[in-house]
Amino acid sequence: MHEKVRIGVIGASGYTGADLVRLAVRHPLIDIAVLTANSHAGKRMEAVFPHLAGLGLPDLITNEEADWSGIDAVFCGLPHATSQQVIAALPEHLKVIDMSADFRLRDPATYEKWYGGAHKALHLQAEAVYGLSEHYREAIRTARLVACPGCYPTAVLMLLLPLVKAGLIDAGDLVIDAKSGVSGAGRSLKQNILFCEAGEGLSPYAIASHRHAPEIEQEISLAAGREVIVNFTPHLIPMSRGELITCYARLAGGATAEDCRNALAERYSEEPFVHMAPEGINPATQYVRGSNNVMLGTYADRVPGRVILVSTLDNLVKGSAGQALQNFNLMLGFDETTGLEQVSLFP
Amino acid sequence: MHEKVRIGVIGASGYTGADLVRLAVRHPLIDIAVLTANSHAGKRMEAVFPHLAGLGLPDLITNEEADWSGIDAVFCGLPHATSQQVIAALPEHLKVIDMSADFRLRDPATYEKWYGGAHKALHLQAEAVYGLSEHYREAIRTARLVACPGCYPTAVLMLLLPLVKAGLIDAGDLVIDAKSGVSGAGRSLKQNILFCEAGEGLSPYAIASHRHAPEIEQEISLAAGREVIVNFTPHLIPMSRGELITCYARLAGGATAEDCRNALAERYSEEPFVHMAPEGINPATQYVRGSNNVMLGTYADRVPGRVILVSTLDNLVKGSAGQALQNFNLMLGFDETTGLEQVSLFP
Amino acid sequence: MHEKVRIGVIGASGYTGADLVRLAVRHPLIDIAVLTANSHAGKRMEAVFPHLAGLGLPDLITNEEADWSGIDAVFCGLPHATSQQVIAALPEHLKVIDMSADFRLRDPATYEKWYGGAHKALHLQAEAVYGLSEHYREAIRTARLVACPGCYPTAVLMLLLPLVKAGLIDAGDLVIDAKSGVSGAGRSLKQNILFCEAGEGLSPYAIASHRHAPEIEQEISLAAGREVIVNFTPHLIPMSRGELITCYARLAGGATAEDCRNALAERYSEEPFVHMAPEGINPATQYVRGSNNVMLGTYADRVPGRVILVSTLDNLVKGSAGQALQNFNLMLGFDETTGLEQVSLFP
Amino acid sequence: MHEKVRIGVIGASGYTGADLVRLAVRHPLIDIAVLTANSHAGKRMEAVFPHLAGLGLPDLITNEEADWSGIDAVFCGLPHATSQQVIAALPEHLKVIDMSADFRLRDPATYEKWYGGAHKALHLQAEAVYGLSEHYREAIRTARLVACPGCYPTAVLMLLLPLVKAGLIDAGDLVIDAKSGVSGAGRSLKQNILFCEAGEGLSPYAIASHRHAPEIEQEISLAAGREVIVNFTPHLIPMSRGELITCYARLAGGATAEDCRNALAERYSEEPFVHMAPEGINPATQYVRGSNNVMLGTYADRVPGRVILVSTLDNLVKGSAGQALQNFNLMLGFDETTGLEQVSLFP
Repeated sequence: MHEKVRIGVIGASGYTGADLVRLAVRHPLIDIAVLTANSHAGKRMEAVFPHLAGLGLPDLITNEEADWSGIDAVFCGLPHATSQQVIAALPEHLKVIDMSADFRLRDPATYEKWYGGAHKALHLQAEAVYGLSEHYREAIRTARLVACPGCYPTAVLMLLLPLVKAGLIDAGDLVIDAKSGVSGAGRSLKQNILFCEAGEGLSPYAIASHRHAPEIEQEISLAAGREVIVNFTPHLIPMSRGELITCYARLAGGATAEDCRNALAERYSEEPFVHMAPEGINPATQYVRGSNNVMLGTYADRVPGRVILVSTLDNLVKGSAGQALQNFNLMLGFDETTGLEQVSLFP
Repeated sequence: MHEKVRIGVIGASGYTGADLVRLAVRHPLIDIAVLTANSHAGKRMEAVFPHLAGLGLPDLITNEEADWSGIDAVFCGLPHATSQQVIAALPEHLKVIDMSADFRLRDPATYEKWYGGAHKALHLQAEAVYGLSEHYREAIRTARLVACPGCYPTAVLMLLLPLVKAGLIDAGDLVIDAKSGVSGAGRSLKQNILFCEAGEGLSPYAIASHRHAPEIEQEISLAAGREVIVNFTPHLIPMSRGELITCYARLAGGATAEDCRNALAERYSEEPFVHMAPEGINPATQYVRGSNNVMLGTYADRVPGRVILVSTLDNLVKGSAGQALQNFNLMLGFDETTGLEQVSLFP
Repeated sequence: MHEKVRIGVIGASGYTGADLVRLAVRHPLIDIAVLTANSHAGKRMEAVFPHLAGLGLPDLITNEEADWSGIDAVFCGLPHATSQQVIAALPEHLKVIDMSADFRLRDPATYEKWYGGAHKALHLQAEAVYGLSEHYREAIRTARLVACPGCYPTAVLMLLLPLVKAGLIDAGDLVIDAKSGVSGAGRSLKQNILFCEAGEGLSPYAIASHRHAPEIEQEISLAAGREVIVNFTPHLIPMSRGELITCYARLAGGATAEDCRNALAERYSEEPFVHMAPEGINPATQYVRGSNNVMLGTYADRVPGRVILVSTLDNLVKGSAGQALQNFNLMLGFDETTGLEQVSLFP
Repeated sequence: MHEKVRIGVIGASGYTGADLVRLAVRHPLIDIAVLTANSHAGKRMEAVFPHLAGLGLPDLITNEEADWSGIDAVFCGLPHATSQQVIAALPEHLKVIDMSADFRLRDPATYEKWYGGAHKALHLQAEAVYGLSEHYREAIRTARLVACPGCYPTAVLMLLLPLVKAGLIDAGDLVIDAKSGVSGAGRSLKQNILFCEAGEGLSPYAIASHRHAPEIEQEISLAAGREVIVNFTPHLIPMSRGELITCYARLAGGATAEDCRNALAERYSEEPFVHMAPEGINPATQYVRGSNNVMLGTYADRVPGRVILVSTLDNLVKGSAGQALQNFNLMLGFDETTGLEQVSLFP
């Protein structure tokens, strides 16, 4: 029987932090001891997120006010570029699960190019483990700092890594059309995510310039054993949660869509959070909402030699807070599904 | 330590049945043994509700195929007027939690008037306990058949019963403006609940003729000690889940809105699922989505002597499947919150 | 045959200004000569509102840059409290149609109480005509300054004024439950109108404190011939456009709901923009979206002696820009429907 | 000065028929004389579509009851496979604008393969003109029967035809990821388009099997001068109206994305309904809602030698009823924009 682990959440006033709290507060082995949010310090959590009322959460404090002695692990939900210094300043005894982008890119030059400034904690970058749970499980178990993947990379890599590794698709010819709900843009005030702007409509954004592209390329390249560039084109969809990837790929070595399906089914057959879409059902974000699940599908294209690959997850759960908690479970030696058993909420 | 209870769900192919399954499958003391749905018999549950894939559920069968020996309790999610005969035909050893309207109305004449036909299981009506958990807890504990309240009545009665009983508001002057998400209309095919019809718009429906009105009146009358008629006007809101009641009442005996607030706060101070809205926050369906919670608020009207009362819940959880499970816990002697700890999903 | 009138729009970067432009650009007797928006001066209108691309609109300038010589009329879409001084500084030859709240309240003390500061253009207040087109038509024709009603007051007063004037309902016992789409909150950045906050949910706001209440009371009191206070409780609905009022009233003098229906039908029989809901159809915002129409319905309450009254309109059209254009037509002697013939957009 | 043309609408009870009526009723040269809808015959149009109340429309009748003498043109909004026989039975003097799929495919074998049965009016197929207005304008002017393109083909072909014809992209390597609002699925009752099923979520559908694929291929092949197969993958988006195409293509002959932009801008420079997205703005369905406009964008891919092409339109307007009216204008010799000047409705 494990004892409870005392955790802190840095940056608890964003959607990612809040969803981490939603899950962690029901995790039987977690005691939420610290919640920080510099812009809301002094407030009750329920004043910032009323859906978290009645849970007996600690009040929000500043990062500086946090007393990390007696804390075992922290989740960091700060925006990119701010996490690195905050995390660098944390005591060594803390296990750190970072949900920001700061430690995802292995190559400092790539980080600098895409995030517009030099990395300020390169020594930590070196030890950070990329937290795609199902693919880096062993390294995560012994990591002190885990860099949780972006929501899009999680959805893409869960779908493509096994196929690239098995040589079933050509890593050099990948078109990744991505669709995300609005929560992926966070809670900060921007005109394009107002209800009247994002509602009842649809548009692509960050075309050929989204920061998740190099992250995807990093991992696909590693799997392929050569440098690849991918097309990655995200779209903003009028829904709050959920993300769906439609990937158009060229089959390699005579493989078929059926081969791809079998490879994915086999690769994930023991994975509690990864499912092939049921027979006759297409993956839909509705089917994974609120859960840590990924649903995958493969389809023969009418264009000879090509395949259509589909992946869906909840961007705030498996795409962020859920996977963070999954990694925490791995790091602490807990059952990986602890606190993550929520069934999808539909409708 | 309790042993697991084997349950069945009759009518598992509706939204109510599915949400019951969503919750029950994670209830540590429940074993889902039977799922029936006559129109989908023979299918896997995930073919009907793909969000329930991967949970190891039994396949759907007909009511007639169900073997009730060895089953301890059944939840019934059939449409009204069909439940009564199905339930009457069940073996005596089963505890029954009915989520339909069939056993809610104590007076057979009222049932007949509002549901357009004579009740076909009046002997069971006599023993049925009205399953508003927080208000009929003791009777529910020993009931064999519990008639779970309608979603609207639950939201209304949780808000008004304590105030009427305390004489703080005039039960004879109640305007109840109700707003519900579309899932309240069920999953059957009707034009008005198509996405393009219900989306991006709003309308009242069943004006002065909704069947939840007599149910509300029944309980308010009991609390008031006299027959009352209430205004009850529901509206269809372009969202899937959630329900919000705005009740306009005349204060009685010199009471104030503050008195109402205090009365509700005190009445529900020990209740795990009922919360007053945090200071400065108005109740919103977003804050209770997916949870079994009710959030309440009271406001002084600018019109002297009047009060504005607000209540919100998730129509499929506390308004249906969640409360059904809460009643099941009471009937089985389990902790009332077992399997109902899900935190609200926001955003 | 009329010549074209050259108009300006002050505050063209808000939703109200944009909808005025949408309508005015197709008005056969309008030439849009000036568009101002101090925070966006120098930009093309299509950079601020891409849906207005390709219409040959003038670029945005500051109010100060505007040359009002040669202009005949201006529409003002500024926020309240800023309009009054801007309008006071305009040349006398301009006809002014103000869509803000600044000149709606006849009593300066009421303005000061609700808007938190002394009115800075009281001399103009004295001459301003309240622009509820169907009810102040004659005064509007000869006005120089028209104060267009708020969106809620328009919906409420179109519904209630004829009934109060005819003595069919008791003006002293009015509960007005109002529901609005999110565009009513404008385009400025506020957390509560983010997609993820307002979407898939519903809440009341500004309970007993909304600034449209005194405006409603002003006009109801005038019609009733005595001071009245009304309950007015708005709710934020997850849709962009549209507004629906459900009013709960006590019938007076033995009147029936049918009498109310007849009175409204007769009062508006010649009005091109006002319709009773078709037989068997309830008013819905979907049915008036994008048009200048108002749809009304009356229903007998089950509570004896009471009536349920419903009104719906598009808050940006009849609730704002459309009515402004209707008033402009009256002021310029044009046919009242010119440029306002758009049929509702459904779905 | 033209005289008014008397028209009929066959199949007026679907969304396409209703949107045709919305536009036609304000067309200055149209008199709507006949509305048919066999399943709703005898009803007033406002009983079926309340947003069309107050327009003085004729009542719905059956196709058989329609008297076509004195009628000049008919629009046909029936489902595919039913149009061909109804149209074949119409008198010769009628100009026919068919909005169904029945006469779109030039090759009877292709029709039979994709629509599951032999074509029953092949003689008419031979004379039918494909109604992509901007690309078949001259043929449309003299046609008696125009087959309006599908919504997806319209969006795709407006984007790709000029580029294929100019040899700027490789017609043999086209990935077309399509996203549509739910109105594209029509008004008939299907579970997947219920509000609770389609809302707050997203999924692909008809993967590699959508009937608009052969239609797209037919026209792309004609433009390319060789048979091509395209990837075409549609997705259902939680919005009512609007469609957005993201096309991933290989540049040909050393062309750049800028070349593509220039080619499109030049090709459509005189077209009133086709616009390049304003500088710095991505095409969004919100910007064309309710209008007959198409908005296009071109973007350099990060993958060398590839381009990302985007197109958006309102599926019920330019994608159906609007383009039908545009073709009608061409066939009757009217100004092509008559009755189609509606500005996009935003928000």
